[in-house]
Amino acid sequence: MNVSIIGTTGYGGAELLRILHSHPVYNIQSIHSTREELPISEEYPHLTDILDHRLEKIDPDKIAEHSELVFLATPSGVSGKLTEAFADSDIQIVDLSGDLRLKQSGVYKKWYGHNAVDPKIINEAVYGLSEWNSQDVARARILSNPGCYPTAALLGLAPVAMNKLIDPAMIIIDAKSGASGAGRAASKGSNFSEVNENIKIYKVNQHQHIPEIEQQLNVWNEAIGNITFSTHLLPITRGIMATMYVKLLQPVSTEEITDLYREMYKNHPFVRIRPVGTYPSIKEVAGSNYCDIGLNSDERTGRLTIVSVIDNLVKGAAGQAVQNANIMNGLDEKAGLEFVPFYP
Amino acid sequence: MNVSIIGTTGYGGAELLRILHSHPVYNIQSIHSTREELPISEEYPHLTDILDHRLEKIDPDKIAEHSELVFLATPSGVSGKLTEAFADSDIQIVDLSGDLRLKQSGVYKKWYGHNAVDPKIINEAVYGLSEWNSQDVARARILSNPGCYPTAALLGLAPVAMNKLIDPAMIIIDAKSGASGAGRAASKGSNFSEVNENIKIYKVNQHQHIPEIEQQLNVWNEAIGNITFSTHLLPITRGIMATMYVKLLQPVSTEEITDLYREMYKNHPFVRIRPVGTYPSIKEVAGSNYCDIGLNSDERTGRLTIVSVIDNLVKGAAGQAVQNANIMNGLDEKAGLEFVPFYP
Amino acid sequence: MNVSIIGTTGYGGAELLRILHSHPVYNIQSIHSTREELPISEEYPHLTDILDHRLEKIDPDKIAEHSELVFLATPSGVSGKLTEAFADSDIQIVDLSGDLRLKQSGVYKKWYGHNAVDPKIINEAVYGLSEWNSQDVARARILSNPGCYPTAALLGLAPVAMNKLIDPAMIIIDAKSGASGAGRAASKGSNFSEVNENIKIYKVNQHQHIPEIEQQLNVWNEAIGNITFSTHLLPITRGIMATMYVKLLQPVSTEEITDLYREMYKNHPFVRIRPVGTYPSIKEVAGSNYCDIGLNSDERTGRLTIVSVIDNLVKGAAGQAVQNANIMNGLDEKAGLEFVPFYP
Amino acid sequence: MNVSIIGTTGYGGAELLRILHSHPVYNIQSIHSTREELPISEEYPHLTDILDHRLEKIDPDKIAEHSELVFLATPSGVSGKLTEAFADSDIQIVDLSGDLRLKQSGVYKKWYGHNAVDPKIINEAVYGLSEWNSQDVARARILSNPGCYPTAALLGLAPVAMNKLIDPAMIIIDAKSGASGAGRAASKGSNFSEVNENIKIYKVNQHQHIPEIEQQLNVWNEAIGNITFSTHLLPITRGIMATMYVKLLQPVSTEEITDLYREMYKNHPFVRIRPVGTYPSIKEVAGSNYCDIGLNSDERTGRLTIVSVIDNLVKGAAGQAVQNANIMNGLDEKAGLEFVPFYP
Repeated sequence: MNVSIIGTTGYGGAELLRILHSHPVYNIQSIHSTREELPISEEYPHLTDILDHRLEKIDPDKIAEHSELVFLATPSGVSGKLTEAFADSDIQIVDLSGDLRLKQSGVYKKWYGHNAVDPKIINEAVYGLSEWNSQDVARARILSNPGCYPTAALLGLAPVAMNKLIDPAMIIIDAKSGASGAGRAASKGSNFSEVNENIKIYKVNQHQHIPEIEQQLNVWNEAIGNITFSTHLLPITRGIMATMYVKLLQPVSTEEITDLYREMYKNHPFVRIRPVGTYPSIKEVAGSNYCDIGLNSDERTGRLTIVSVIDNLVKGAAGQAVQNANIMNGLDEKAGLEFVPFYP
Repeated sequence: MNVSIIGTTGYGGAELLRILHSHPVYNIQSIHSTREELPISEEYPHLTDILDHRLEKIDPDKIAEHSELVFLATPSGVSGKLTEAFADSDIQIVDLSGDLRLKQSGVYKKWYGHNAVDPKIINEAVYGLSEWNSQDVARARILSNPGCYPTAALLGLAPVAMNKLIDPAMIIIDAKSGASGAGRAASKGSNFSEVNENIKIYKVNQHQHIPEIEQQLNVWNEAIGNITFSTHLLPITRGIMATMYVKLLQPVSTEEITDLYREMYKNHPFVRIRPVGTYPSIKEVAGSNYCDIGLNSDERTGRLTIVSVIDNLVKGAAGQAVQNANIMNGLDEKAGLEFVPFYP
Repeated sequence: MNVSIIGTTGYGGAELLRILHSHPVYNIQSIHSTREELPISEEYPHLTDILDHRLEKIDPDKIAEHSELVFLATPSGVSGKLTEAFADSDIQIVDLSGDLRLKQSGVYKKWYGHNAVDPKIINEAVYGLSEWNSQDVARARILSNPGCYPTAALLGLAPVAMNKLIDPAMIIIDAKSGASGAGRAASKGSNFSEVNENIKIYKVNQHQHIPEIEQQLNVWNEAIGNITFSTHLLPITRGIMATMYVKLLQPVSTEEITDLYREMYKNHPFVRIRPVGTYPSIKEVAGSNYCDIGLNSDERTGRLTIVSVIDNLVKGAAGQAVQNANIMNGLDEKAGLEFVPFYP
Repeated sequence: MNVSIIGTTGYGGAELLRILHSHPVYNIQSIHSTREELPISEEYPHLTDILDHRLEKIDPDKIAEHSELVFLATPSGVSGKLTEAFADSDIQIVDLSGDLRLKQSGVYKKWYGHNAVDPKIINEAVYGLSEWNSQDVARARILSNPGCYPTAALLGLAPVAMNKLIDPAMIIIDAKSGASGAGRAASKGSNFSEVNENIKIYKVNQHQHIPEIEQQLNVWNEAIGNITFSTHLLPITRGIMATMYVKLLQPVSTEEITDLYREMYKNHPFVRIRPVGTYPSIKEVAGSNYCDIGLNSDERTGRLTIVSVIDNLVKGAAGQAVQNANIMNGLDEKAGLEFVPFYP
């Protein structure tokens, strides 16, 4: 099955290449970028002798002709326009940007700062949190891949949100991300000397992933109100940890809540619940499509601490995109994604 | 004024040496360790040609004879016993461990796992959060230096706790620390390959700094209940960031709360309040005795996010210890502590 | 084909698990350690739900009975004894330690400090520098896997050594390695706070890999004399770069020397020669079995700079071990090893 | 004594601010930049409440009027023009760029790619390798501060070069630098995700510091020919290590060579020679003006390995600049520079 990638020179695109190269079903038919046409190995020397594709200009008609699925690893604003360009063809679209995620009119513009895509497309696009929306994903033609932070946060909150175990007015998410989440563009703030030996908090209560998380939480429990969400830049390349604090409506022990999580994720191979008393760390999922979750119910406070980790470029981007593509095409969702975490 | 240091080979001890070496008043009379006697430059080559002291055995009587003040940079358990040994002399004691911090009987044993020091000593020891307890510190002979996490957390929470602006039942502290906080002893978990490219959460709701923070918050506002406190190990050497989430009882804007903080810290040169819309990062205080604080009041949720950063080895240990010693001896609290942060 | 691993809890062992888990031919029959028996996921949580093996005691007879090949990822000193214990069985042995590498009597003891293995075994063991010794490897029953530094150095030097293009008296190797090369055991020098923001030179002219490199260089060109070899500890987890300086006997341009390298490695898929004017970096081979080489011939000095990079845990240990096992068993040498480098 | 700084927003400029702020003699009269005028604490928040200077436009006449010395922390190309603009005033000039270092006509243009400064100025400028040129420095009005790599390399090579102990045709310098050496400007190659967990070699045999090193070596020993010089980018912020390989003309033991170095540097407080069998690491000089040197004479090869480390922003830039200014003005060369290294 031929697939194409647009936006190949960013880190999300590079990770798609890593995953798709060894995928048993997909064939990388073409790769595209707005940048000059050159062999991908000049842009990414680590792909020397592995991929001999050349970066090509973006011609939606031509792509739709020779490929059955296109991954859009392009920035917000660009993805939306490309989706519109592909809308009349019958190519499958998996968009990794935020352009198709927010369903309610006005919300996109408020948080992203520019105009939303044609509502018809927004409406057709299925939000691909693979573990919890697989039925809709299976029928999707346009797939909106979740953000990196929302993936970590939502997989960690789903069981308590769905089962209405927590105070809907008090959800606090303290998230930490590696620098690859900021992409590959040069900026003073991304310089090694600024990020190294440092941790920075940014976009406090203003991150565009806030409405995305709230929207999905409300699908599960409409009583849930506004969340508090902080994002920190870590001096690591890959990985997200979301440490989440919620108030339990009734006392539930760590053992009980761990059992509930195990039960709810028992058919979801990419979510691993850690034994009571242990917690996941970012390195334990690096390079893999896993989301690992640890839990601590504190009797002293009645609050539950939820720790959720992912690799932002895999489960938080390219990996989940391929997982969704697998579901859309009736494949095993694990196809091409069974990477053992890269440890140490 | 002659001073001695016990526990010189740990990172806190090394930082005391860095600070005291250039202090205008204190003279490093002797340095001590349970380890073999050798020149300090063999243990710490960076001190070659700077300090020619030899590590000596620990003889409290002899130390009390030739020094006027002793810094205990020893682990919990050891410090308490040393304090008892020094109790009958008139030497000033500044203890950097947790042994003298918890005033209430039983609490120490519960959180530290071994027996507390003689209650008479505990009672005499003054808790040296310099900015908020300077009157008692000025009169102290036995000084209990605050923990690294409590320093960052309490300086960030003091204004809203004292002014009763927040829901006393909801204080959530998400703290992150560099690896030097775990000390210099070898352990598998401290190995570079385990800490690097990683973030680990540890001692969830079980950290021994929890009762220390709660005790001081209750001094300020006895209505404050149990806190939620998480600690994360960052892949950096120095620094702590505490990101704190509280619920405002009344709406207060970021501008108003920033003004309040500026007002309350206007006479405290080591606490810097950041302009509205900006937040401190760890690197901006590295190597210095500063605690930098940023604030964000979120209208959507009615919650306030407080970001507080320190260098754990300076303001969180050796720096605040010297600041307290300065106050105890009637010196300018800034004496020997005006290091410009080490940036980048 | 059933295989066993001894010494599974070190980083080399963990990397063998990562590689063998997805290998098309080998089945991990059993894993062994001198440590207590427990599920591997307790030792390495990243393997949760991936491998459900328990660590077992080391019983050579039992292992030889149920497995056809055993990987020894054990330290020098231990591996030799295990090889002796397996010598009478017909199990294939792939040893990752230095115990079987040095052929000449007395040299092992001089550099490793303890007694060498039975000379009969040493003699039988084939040195598995896969690219240059594949005929012997194909016939081997006992395989001595090269050291990490020697792999990087020898692959970089082979073409000029074999073709006698360089002054045999002047070979200088400045090598740099990530911290995983020092293994997983706790030590003060391996602590994050000591390695981070640092680079340390160690074992100057005393590294036990010196005689290993010299021995192989002499196989290629017996005129080659003693080398100068320095090793540095980098603040990264994985990877080795060897920067090598040699004197050309005749002027050769960078273009000519690059062509020679391409020619000599044209049938060796895991060695990639970089285009003139570009050089490999460690990140470009991380997680993969590649060795990437860049070259610069300097007209001003008549010296050639050779840059060679590998992932020390893959091509420098577990990857090359599997590559050798593949050759020993008549498989494609690439089987199970086609990992795309993990970038960024 | 009033001083001004031009090029304050780079890392070299920031380090000058750190050093000059606590200098006993110099007063920071004004700071300048081509960027917009704003308080320095907006550009560098770590200076909040420490320095309240505003960045000002660059007006040489005005600067020469109110300051007695100007530090040029500007890039190559810019510094030269500024020196010309200041040439007719009597202000002391300390230039941290490469513009005034190369004395021989044509060499600057070849290695830097643009035209050299007025030869009269080049001629007047004194090359300020403080330890070995202090007599000329004491008389200088225009001071050319050495490059970071040349400082580490030359201090390490001086004793053997001056004493003609080594083969003049074989000097090999393998240098490694932290990322702050590349400055603060944004570039894709400086992004955290590219530098982290990596080491890159760059400008192989083409670095503009090559002629600077050769020029000074020839001052000491005119027989010395072209050197081989490689530079590597380390994933650390600060520090340079130069590992150097030379051929001894006569056998000299490590003990003897160490004694020679101690003797030659006995009056130079910022150069520390390590005991036989030990070697300096970058962290041991971080934040300080020290250059630490370790030595190993290898009987097997007759070659000497010299390891030299500095903090590139201190001894490699701002620190040596202040040391030179001190010498120019008859102060103790250590004035304002006695920082204890920042460890760990």
